[in-house]
Amino acid sequence: MTKIAIVGAGLIGRSWAYVFARAGMQVVVWDPEAAVLDRLDEDVCAMHARAGAHERAGDDPQGLPSRIRACPRLEDALDGADLVQENGPEVLDIKQSLFAELDRLAAPQTILASSSSALMASTFTQGLEGRARCLIAHPVNPPHLVPVVELCPTPDTDPDVMERAAVIYRDAQQVPVLLGREIDGFVLNRLQAVVLAESLRLISEGIVTPEGLDDTIRHGLGRRWAFMGPMETIHLNAPGGIQDYLERYGPTMARLSNDAARGEAFTADAARKAGADFSTDTREDIRARQEWRDGELAALDRHLLNRSANRS
Amino acid sequence: MTKIAIVGAGLIGRSWAYVFARAGMQVVVWDPEAAVLDRLDEDVCAMHARAGAHERAGDDPQGLPSRIRACPRLEDALDGADLVQENGPEVLDIKQSLFAELDRLAAPQTILASSSSALMASTFTQGLEGRARCLIAHPVNPPHLVPVVELCPTPDTDPDVMERAAVIYRDAQQVPVLLGREIDGFVLNRLQAVVLAESLRLISEGIVTPEGLDDTIRHGLGRRWAFMGPMETIHLNAPGGIQDYLERYGPTMARLSNDAARGEAFTADAARKAGADFSTDTREDIRARQEWRDGELAALDRHLLNRSANRS
Repeated sequence: MTKIAIVGAGLIGRSWAYVFARAGMQVVVWDPEAAVLDRLDEDVCAMHARAGAHERAGDDPQGLPSRIRACPRLEDALDGADLVQENGPEVLDIKQSLFAELDRLAAPQTILASSSSALMASTFTQGLEGRARCLIAHPVNPPHLVPVVELCPTPDTDPDVMERAAVIYRDAQQVPVLLGREIDGFVLNRLQAVVLAESLRLISEGIVTPEGLDDTIRHGLGRRWAFMGPMETIHLNAPGGIQDYLERYGPTMARLSNDAARGEAFTADAARKAGADFSTDTREDIRARQEWRDGELAALDRHLLNRSANRS
Repeated sequence: MTKIAIVGAGLIGRSWAYVFARAGMQVVVWDPEAAVLDRLDEDVCAMHARAGAHERAGDDPQGLPSRIRACPRLEDALDGADLVQENGPEVLDIKQSLFAELDRLAAPQTILASSSSALMASTFTQGLEGRARCLIAHPVNPPHLVPVVELCPTPDTDPDVMERAAVIYRDAQQVPVLLGREIDGFVLNRLQAVVLAESLRLISEGIVTPEGLDDTIRHGLGRRWAFMGPMETIHLNAPGGIQDYLERYGPTMARLSNDAARGEAFTADAARKAGADFSTDTREDIRARQEWRDGELAALDRHLLNRSANRS
């Protein structure tokens, strides 16, 4: 049976524990805070109850909580692990010392994967003896409701480690995307960044309201991207497919992207204008909306799973 | 009863006819090709049959085909129309002479809306007596399955015309997004352009495969954007909301967007690499995939309508 060690049991770490246990794997969870481990059972059961209607409950939903075990000593948590999913703070020197410790304690064949979104793995694995077994496995929050996971190597990562990690994530019913080489922001946040830059610009120049911007995506482009992605979308937008599309519309799209906003769009004024519709939200309102979002993500995942199961 | 004149009955024009008739409006369709008008009934009935399971059938689905009437004389088609939805070829001098004719023939209170995606309305309405009643109403293909419609004014468009048009599209169950001023590409294609530029770059540099790129969106960002849009997404990605998000992650996002690809990414080589996964598709395969896409768009629309009906 595949054994996973979760290092750091905040929101992302607990969601990862849930993902692997749901798929029938054995999960051991370590966190430097004893209090976090003390309430792990309770937190997992709450997550499980909320996700009850979710169709990705796995083959043995009753047994799920029993497959997640808290472990107060890091060395014990790592014992026999096939993969470590690290979810520490995004602070370089903390990551560096944590990875040094993981590399020292974990058996040589154990894969060391970091959930980091802001740091490239080479910045905290470069000097390690076991650097070839280190990679980024960047999820979307929360991973148990959004299946993609970006696998980003460093120049030192063994391609075989990438493949072995991909198999584990696939077995866990996630969708691993293997990157060919290390790049700042990976793929997902690079795409999010260009959309945010241009969105902030259009809003701050008064061309569209924040609500109009969101409507344009959620009632427009987002309808296609939710099940196809941008490449299949344009492949189906010209009679001869993607090459035909890029011959016809490439010059227009090139012109529009040449003229698009970049980093200069991230001003305090733009942030204020973009936030105008949300400015009365308290932290409690935001938490309530996050719960609503998670319910919608679960429902959409169920919908898309049902549809793809019916695809011939 | 609201009366709509459809000018140009290709794929988009027929879908528009369907949208307005579905909402109980009276629709008259004109096209320069007699053959297109001859088979209009048949085409509408086929669209109606395919969309049969669709929940946006309106109050009187049986009566829908009878609310769409082909009309061989443009002057008669425009008679008494509240709004003209123009769907001619995206060729400047054709648009110019068509709009001159529409402006000459239509009653002064009739709104003249163009489905154009590639041309700004000022380029073909500037000299017209009735330029204040002209605007772009840019749909996503096909409008009867994707509800957004971008309303883009020219410097001459009367704000009251924008509002009256918005009411008609809202009555037709579409989601109008009103732009504050004229801009090349409007909002939707500007956002699509920046995503395509960076996507083509990442693919052509071997950082991600076309399938991996699509997976990153459809199993990642697209899951959120399908029901929230980019602004609400980031609003829920920091404890203090969108302003908190932009303070924490704005500098990272600015750095990533500064470093992003632009127009230079639209090369023949990038097109070839992006199309590699699809290269064996014949035109027939593409048509079959388009039918699959339309079925998925209908199912997703149904899903999202049901969810929002349940939102408290």
